[in-house]
Amino acid sequence: MTNTIAVRIEALREELRRENLFAFIFPTTDPHNSEYTADHWKGREWISGFSGSAGTAVVTLNSAALWTDSRYFIAAAQQLEGSEFQLMRERIAGTPTIAEWLGRECDPGAEVALDGMCSSASTVKELIDDLRKQGGITLRTNFDVLQRIWTNRPAIPTAPIVPQPLEYAGEDVTSKLTRIRQALRQVHTDGMLMASLDDIAWTLNLRGADVHCNPVFVSYLLISTRSSTLFVDEAKLTSAARQQLQQYGISIAPYGGVKEALRHYPDYNILADPDEVSYTLMQAIKTGLAGITQRQGVVVTLASPVPAMKAVKTQAEQRGFRQAMIRDGVALVRFLRWLKPAVAAGGQTEMSIDRHLTALRAEQPLYRGLSFDTIAAYQAHGAIVHYEGTPDTDAPLRPEGLLLLDSGAQYVDGTTDITRTIALGPVTDEQCRIYTLVLKAHIQLQLLRFPDGASGTQLDAIARRPLWHAGLNFLHGTGHGVGAYLNVHEGPHQIRMEYRPAPLHAGMTVTDEPGIYLEGQFGVRIENVLLIQPAMETDFGSFLQFETLTLCPIDTEPLDVSLLTPDELLWLNDYHQLVYDRLAPHLDAPDRDWLRIATQPVS
Amino acid sequence: MTNTIAVRIEALREELRRENLFAFIFPTTDPHNSEYTADHWKGREWISGFSGSAGTAVVTLNSAALWTDSRYFIAAAQQLEGSEFQLMRERIAGTPTIAEWLGRECDPGAEVALDGMCSSASTVKELIDDLRKQGGITLRTNFDVLQRIWTNRPAIPTAPIVPQPLEYAGEDVTSKLTRIRQALRQVHTDGMLMASLDDIAWTLNLRGADVHCNPVFVSYLLISTRSSTLFVDEAKLTSAARQQLQQYGISIAPYGGVKEALRHYPDYNILADPDEVSYTLMQAIKTGLAGITQRQGVVVTLASPVPAMKAVKTQAEQRGFRQAMIRDGVALVRFLRWLKPAVAAGGQTEMSIDRHLTALRAEQPLYRGLSFDTIAAYQAHGAIVHYEGTPDTDAPLRPEGLLLLDSGAQYVDGTTDITRTIALGPVTDEQCRIYTLVLKAHIQLQLLRFPDGASGTQLDAIARRPLWHAGLNFLHGTGHGVGAYLNVHEGPHQIRMEYRPAPLHAGMTVTDEPGIYLEGQFGVRIENVLLIQPAMETDFGSFLQFETLTLCPIDTEPLDVSLLTPDELLWLNDYHQLVYDRLAPHLDAPDRDWLRIATQPVS
Repeated sequence: MTNTIAVRIEALREELRRENLFAFIFPTTDPHNSEYTADHWKGREWISGFSGSAGTAVVTLNSAALWTDSRYFIAAAQQLEGSEFQLMRERIAGTPTIAEWLGRECDPGAEVALDGMCSSASTVKELIDDLRKQGGITLRTNFDVLQRIWTNRPAIPTAPIVPQPLEYAGEDVTSKLTRIRQALRQVHTDGMLMASLDDIAWTLNLRGADVHCNPVFVSYLLISTRSSTLFVDEAKLTSAARQQLQQYGISIAPYGGVKEALRHYPDYNILADPDEVSYTLMQAIKTGLAGITQRQGVVVTLASPVPAMKAVKTQAEQRGFRQAMIRDGVALVRFLRWLKPAVAAGGQTEMSIDRHLTALRAEQPLYRGLSFDTIAAYQAHGAIVHYEGTPDTDAPLRPEGLLLLDSGAQYVDGTTDITRTIALGPVTDEQCRIYTLVLKAHIQLQLLRFPDGASGTQLDAIARRPLWHAGLNFLHGTGHGVGAYLNVHEGPHQIRMEYRPAPLHAGMTVTDEPGIYLEGQFGVRIENVLLIQPAMETDFGSFLQFETLTLCPIDTEPLDVSLLTPDELLWLNDYHQLVYDRLAPHLDAPDRDWLRIATQPVS
Repeated sequence: MTNTIAVRIEALREELRRENLFAFIFPTTDPHNSEYTADHWKGREWISGFSGSAGTAVVTLNSAALWTDSRYFIAAAQQLEGSEFQLMRERIAGTPTIAEWLGRECDPGAEVALDGMCSSASTVKELIDDLRKQGGITLRTNFDVLQRIWTNRPAIPTAPIVPQPLEYAGEDVTSKLTRIRQALRQVHTDGMLMASLDDIAWTLNLRGADVHCNPVFVSYLLISTRSSTLFVDEAKLTSAARQQLQQYGISIAPYGGVKEALRHYPDYNILADPDEVSYTLMQAIKTGLAGITQRQGVVVTLASPVPAMKAVKTQAEQRGFRQAMIRDGVALVRFLRWLKPAVAAGGQTEMSIDRHLTALRAEQPLYRGLSFDTIAAYQAHGAIVHYEGTPDTDAPLRPEGLLLLDSGAQYVDGTTDITRTIALGPVTDEQCRIYTLVLKAHIQLQLLRFPDGASGTQLDAIARRPLWHAGLNFLHGTGHGVGAYLNVHEGPHQIRMEYRPAPLHAGMTVTDEPGIYLEGQFGVRIENVLLIQPAMETDFGSFLQFETLTLCPIDTEPLDVSLLTPDELLWLNDYHQLVYDRLAPHLDAPDRDWLRIATQPVS
C-alpha cells in the first residue's frame, strides 16, 4: 500500500508542476457536503490510504500531511505508517491549521488548489481568507486533479431509485413543496438549490442506495416559484419513481446539467445554503443571477429550511419507527440470548458476532441494510470511540469483561441506532462503577422535561452531570437526530457541549448516548433513540418530554444498583417492562423466556 | 410630568426641524457603555419620563415610542401614561424593531440621529445596517441634541477618587498592566483603549462614586507599549490616588482630551472592543491610525481581555468577600430577627423595611453603600421581577404570605447580592410548593461539579430542571458575576439560557438565583453568591465546584421538606450549619439564639 501511495503522490506532483501549483487539498466530502460519500468521491482515502470518515489530506511538491480528529488518531497513525504523510492531530496544542502549515511550507504568493465542487461554499471561503493571511497564498478551485490521476476511479453510483410509500412517509410531495415554498417566502426568496442528498430524498419521497448505509441518491433539486427540477442520472429511476415524479410535476434533467440550469434560473431570488452548496455551484449561481441584475437577482445565503422540516417526523414516520424498533428489538434479543453462551463456547471474535447480528437483522421484514458499520469493541477496543474492527485487529471474545456494541439498521419504516455495553462474564468493580454512572447519565436525560424550543446545548449537561460529579467526561456529542429510513445522523439539532442553537420540538428523534472511555482498559456507551413528545401546556409555555423508541434490554449484570436514585431505578424497571411488553408477542418461547429474565426488575 | 414631557418633546422637534432630521434615538447608556449611568447621561429618562434601567426612546417629528423589556412592561406603561409615548414591548410577537418602526414612520431616505458618543460601536453599526434596509434611512451620529435642549442638565459627577488598598485588591497595578499587555501581545496588539469604568477601576486599583451603587469614576484609560494615560477630571483625584498613579507611572490627562489623544497614539496596533468603545471614539481611532497608514496602523476590534481577568478574583479579594459576607450576614440576621415581629406589630411597609435593612448594613464596618436599589416586594409585587417600590406602590406588610427581598451592599472588601423569600406568616400550599421547587433549583446548581472552561449556558439547565419538570420556568438569567467592591453585575460569564460562551474558571464569583413569578399572586427567588473553586484533577481534566459565599439563613417556614431529595436536604442542613458557625461569633446573645433556631436542621 505504501508503495502505491508513493506512486499516486508522484502522479499528483507531476500535475501540480504542470499546473504551476504548490499543493492540492483533499477534504472528505462530495458535491453534496455529505458526511458519508460514494466511493467516486473518496479521493482523500485514495491519495493517503487513510480510510476514516473524517480528515483532510494535503500534498505539496515536497511534503504531505493528513489532519484528523481524536477518534482516528490511532487508526490514522497505523494506516499512514511508512507513507510520506505526517499525521496532524486536530485540536491538540501545537497542531497547525492547514493554512498555517501551508504558510510554512510554501513560498509567499504560491497557488494551491482543491476541487471547488467537493467543498461547501462556506468552507472554501474560510480557507481562502485563512490562506490569504499566510503570505498571500491563493486558492485555485476549478481543478479536479483526480479526474486526471485516479485511474480506475469508481463511477458515480447507479443504484435504482424507488418511491418511499406514503404510508411510511406520511406527507406527500406536494405538501412538502408547498411548505418549503412557504418557508422560502418567509425569507423573501422564490426558490432554492437543494444539494443535501437526504433532504432531496425526503422532499421527493424517494430512496436510493448510492451511499453505503445511507438510502440516498446522487442528485440536485432546483425549486423555483413555478417548477421543480431533479438533476439525476435518469437511468437510475425505476418506472415507479419516474411515475411519482411525473405525478407531482417534477421535471427531470441530467445530473451534470445543474450548473448550466442555474444560469437560466427563472426567478429573482434564490436561496443557497453556504454550508450545503459547493463553492463552485455557489459561484455559478452568483454568476447566473448577476446576468439578470437588471431584474435585481439576489442569492440569499441562508440556512436551508429543509433540515428543520425533515427533523420533525410525521405521525406515519413515528408509527414506522415504533414498528421498526420492534423488529430490530426481536433481532437484538435473539442475538443477546445467543451471545454469552457462544462466547463461553469459544471461537467468537468482534467480527464474527457482528456478522451474526447482521444476519439476524437481515431476517427481519422490511430490512434494507445497516444504517452504519457496526462497532463491536471488546475491552480496550471499547475505549477507541470509533473503533472499526479489521482482520488485523479483530479480537477474540472471552467470557469476561465488557463488549461495547454500537449498531443499527435501515428498515423501510424506520432507521435504528443502538448501543449496549454487555458483560461477557465477570467484570471488575471499576467496570461496574463506570457502567452504572454512564447508565445514570443516560437515564437522567430520558427523565428530563424541558421547554419547547430549548436547544441541545442547553440540555447536554443534564446527561453529563453524574459523570462530571465523578470527575469523568466524554468528548463526543450526547445525541443526534435520526432519519426516517434516511441517514442515521441527521440535523439540524444535536445534544452536545458545543453551541448548536437549533430548537428542539415535538416530533423530533434524538439519540441519548453518553459514554466513558478509559484508554487501554475499556469503554462504556449506552444509547437509545428517543422521540420528543409534548409533556404539558402551562402558563409558562409548552413543555416537552422523551418517549423511548429503542426496545432492547440494558444489561443489569454490570450494574451497581446502590448508585442509582429511586427515580433512576424506577425508570430502568419501567423501561424493561415496556421492552418485554412490546417484544414478547413477537418472540418464540425460548427468546421470550430469556427476555423475561433479562428484563426482570432490579432493586 | 406629562406636560413637562410634552414641552421637552417640542423643544426636541424644533431642533430636529432646524437640523433637517426626522427623528432622534435615546438609548440607555453612556460613553462607557455602562449598565447604570450617572444622571448626566440619563437622557432617555429625561425625554420620556420612564425611569427603568433598560429601554430606548425614539421621538420623530410626529410620533414617539419607547422600547423596553418584560421586566418593565407594567412600570413603563404607568410612567408613560398621558404622554405621547407609545410602549413597545420587546420580544413580544408583533412588536417592530426600532428600525422597522422608523421605516414605517419615515419617508424613504430620511435622516435620523443619535449621539454616537453614547452608544457602542457595534450597536451603532448594527443600527446603521438595519436602517439602511428600511428604505435607505441614514443615521447621523455627531449630534448631542441634549446639550442644546436639556436645561439644568446634571454635570458629569465629581466624586473623589480613592485608592483601593492592596490588602483588598491583592494585585498591584504594575502586575495588572503587565498581564494586560501580555494578553494584548497574544492578539498581536500594542495597546488598547479601555472605556468600561469598572475595568479601569480594577486595573488602577482606584474607586470612585460617580454612579449610584457602582464605585467607579468617569474616565478612559489608554494603554500603549510604553505608557498608560488616565483621562479624568483631575480635580477628583485625592492626593493618595494621585500619588498611586504617579507611583505606577500612569499619566493624567483631561477627560475630554481622549479623542485628540487617539490621533497621536504612538503604536502601530490598538485594540478597541466594539461592544465597549463608543461609535464616535471608534471612528476617531480609525481616523487616527489612518493618518499613520505608512506605518500600517491597525485597529483590532476584538473583545477586551480585561473582563475575563477581573472576573477571576485574587486570594485577597476572595478573603475580602468572605469577610464582607460575615458583616452582611450579621446585618441580615439582625434584620430577620426583627422582621416578623415588626410586621406582626403593624405599620411596616415594603419601603420601611428597606430603610431598616439599609440602616443595619450602614452600621457595619467598611460599608460604603448599597450595591443596587433594594427590591422589597410583598406578595403580588414579588411577581414583578424588577419591582421598585415607590410611595405610590408601597405596600403595607401583613403577617401572612411571601416577601421577596433582593438586596446587597458595597463594602471596601467585597460586594454582596442576596435574595431571600420570607414567609411573614401563614402561606398557601401553592406558595410552599413553588418555594420548595425554587430552593431545589438553587441547591441543584450549588451541588454541581463541572469541567473547567464550561460555559454558563451549559450549566443553566441544571438549576432549571426541577422547575421545568413541574412546567415552570423563569425568563431572567440564573447567575451573573459579582465585582470585588465593584459593579454587582459583572461579566464576561453568565449562567443563562441564551448563549454566553465565556468559560468558567476557578476564582470567579457567580450568583445562583432561580425564581418563579406567578403574575398577580406572588414571586419567589432565592439567591446566594458563589465562588468557583477547584474540585479535582482527573484523567479527564480539571473539575470545578462552588463554595457558597453568602451567609444568611434560608427560611424553612414555607418549605415542603417532602419535595427535597436526600442530597438537597443534606446541602440545606450543611449550609445552615456553616451560616451559624461563621456568624455566631459576631452576634450578641439574642441574635445568636434566633440564628440557632433559624438554622436548625430540618428533616
